[in-house]
This record gives sequence, structure tokens and C-alpha cells, in this order.
Amino acid sequence: MDSPDARATPAAGRLARQLDFLRDADRLKRVLRRTRLIDRSRLENSAEHSWHLALMALTLGEYAEPGTDLSRVVELLVVHDLVEIDAGDTFAYDAAANVGKDERERAAADRLYGQLPADVGERLRAAWDEFEARATPEARFANALDRFQGLLLNDAVGDGGTWVEHHVSRAAVEQRMAPIRDAAPALWAYAVSAVERATGAGQLR
Amino acid sequence: MDSPDARATPAAGRLARQLDFLRDADRLKRVLRRTRLIDRSRLENSAEHSWHLALMALTLGEYAEPGTDLSRVVELLVVHDLVEIDAGDTFAYDAAANVGKDERERAAADRLYGQLPADVGERLRAAWDEFEARATPEARFANALDRFQGLLLNDAVGDGGTWVEHHVSRAAVEQRMAPIRDAAPALWAYAVSAVERATGAGQLR
Repeated sequence: MDSPDARATPAAGRLARQLDFLRDADRLKRVLRRTRLIDRSRLENSAEHSWHLALMALTLGEYAEPGTDLSRVVELLVVHDLVEIDAGDTFAYDAAANVGKDERERAAADRLYGQLPADVGERLRAAWDEFEARATPEARFANALDRFQGLLLNDAVGDGGTWVEHHVSRAAVEQRMAPIRDAAPALWAYAVSAVERATGAGQLR
Repeated sequence: MDSPDARATPAAGRLARQLDFLRDADRLKRVLRRTRLIDRSRLENSAEHSWHLALMALTLGEYAEPGTDLSRVVELLVVHDLVEIDAGDTFAYDAAANVGKDERERAAADRLYGQLPADVGERLRAAWDEFEARATPEARFANALDRFQGLLLNDAVGDGGTWVEHHVSRAAVEQRMAPIRDAAPALWAYAVSAVERATGAGQLR
């Protein structure tokens, strides 16, 4: 930690760059997902979705792999969608839209985190890289929650939501949810039951 | 941490209560604040505001008191506005609206966190209590960010935003921002300059 003086008077331009980044981040509130709020009043945006995921990590942490650092999970979730400010939200069930997604998002990460002082930018970028690589228990649980949250909302709206609107197949949902099976078995059991309900109601192809 | 079996098959009703709480939390996305997004397109909601604050904690942590646990700061920020689901957002500069605010919010916390299994509910409720009490470095920094974020957006919109719309006085803004002075001196210097700008532009009474 810095001395009190350093806290009061950051190096010239350092705080300005941090605030530029945070003003830029405000734009994530205008990136719309395909999912509706549970009351169906409007589409969900990626900023409030990220908040919901952080709350899920704090609420459902007991279902993560033993030893998972839940604070780190929350960090990964807070930054995981920032690249959408430049790259937009890519609908998981749209194969064509997913072509080139990785390159678009990497370019977005370069620009976004590049605005920050190098030490801060590298730290936040590392959290996004970790989320994307899914190689740590923290990233696996964060990714499982990301997939589970869409299902939770879709199941709650009652009319099949995104799945009906976009003619999604049962096989596609099962494939998308598969990473939940190992990362959070309790949530997997719920996901399976939700898919059964939607299939029974004719909401999944 | 629980054994893998316990992870896969939570005690009957336990997961259901956690998911009820998380579905209820979806309503925070519909609680509107007085602040506008920087592009002025619409009012900000309390869920995306909470996300923005969590990102600010990860970006500006170096300006907290030495030894501050930033993971805890993020936790406090993720839950800090949940009570607004029942109690609504109370505009900081509306004295009349603030009468009875504490009682309304405590009743909301009783109901909201009471939905959860006791251990989880008590843990999240403790984070909200800590935020409100402002007695720890983590709560002081979280509160400083909460106040600073409104100022950051108001300064960025360029037309005085909420301050002009609601005829806020310079004295009221300075009083509201005062806790930033000790909790985050670097941000305080910025807050002072923003208030000077707004005063110079005739945007603060």
C-alpha cells in the first residue's frame, strides 16, 4: 500500500486514466443481452447481469469445488463482460455471430485495459484472461454461474423466454449448460429439471 | 467446504430458498436512481450502479486506507443496495424522503435476507450491516465510492445532471461528499475540483 501522501496525490495522470476507464465502463449498461428480466418488462443489460452473477457467487458459493476462492470468483465476474463495450454481446445460441468473437473480444480487451496505468490494467486483464481460459476452479465456477443465470431467468419468466423467441433446441441448451455438471453439481441438477420443464411445455425444439 | 456428495444434493429446500432470493434480487434492476447514464439516455438502476461500484473498488483500491481488504469492499458493494427492492431508492438530497429511511431499510433487510438459509442470510446481512455502520476501513471506502460514483457521473454528463434537475446546493454536495476526505483523499481532491467546475458553470445553488 502507498503512504498517505501518495494516496492523496497520485502520480500525474494516473487517477485521470483510472477515471477515464470507469467512465468508459458506464457504457456496459447500454449493452443488451437476449435475456429478459423476470417480469419481462425489458431486456437485461450486461452491467446488471454482471452484478447478479457477483451476488450469485456470494449466495451459492457452497456449491463450488472445495477450496474455491470466492472473492476471486466475484472479481472474475465483475470484469467478465467488459469487452462487450466494444465487441457487443454475442448470443450464445447464434453460431454465425460467434465466428470471430474471440478476436473481437481480444481487441476490445487491448483497448479497454490499455487505458489504465499498466499495473492496474494488467491485473484486471489477467482476471478476464483467467475467466476465458476456464483453467482454474474460480474460472470454472464463474463460467458455470454465467451459464446458470440465463437459465434461471428463462425458467422464471414461465413462457420459455429466449429459448422460444430464438427457436433454441434442447440439445443446444444441454451443450451450453454442460460445464455446470462438474463445476457445480447441485446447480446442474436444477438445470436438468428446468430443461425437462421447458421440454414438457414445448418450449425447446 | 462440503463433500462432493453434499455439493450435488443440497439439503431439501436449501437451494430452492437460495434461488428464491436470487430471483427476488432480479427486481433491483428495476429500482431507478436519480442519476443518469453518462450519455443521458436514461436513469441508472441500482443493480448496474452496484456493479459499477464493484469495478471502481477493483480499479481504485490503491486510494483506500492502507490494509483495506478490497475483496470485502466488493462484497459490501454487491449487497449494499439490495434493501431498495422493498424500500426504494431514497434520493440523498431529499430530506423529507430520508425520514424513516433506516426503519424501512431494516424491515426490508429482515424480509430479504430472511428468505435464505440462516447461515447464508446472516452472512450477507452482516455485510449490509457493516456497510451501513461505516465503522471498518472496508465500509468507509465502500461508502466513499458510493458517494463518489454519483459525482463522477454528474460531472461527466456536462450539464450538471441531477444537481441542476433537483436544485441541489453546493453546501449539500460538500456535506454528502465529506466522508470521502478521510476514506480516499485522492478522490476527495477530484470531488473538490468537480464541485468547483459545477459552481463555476452555475450548476450548483
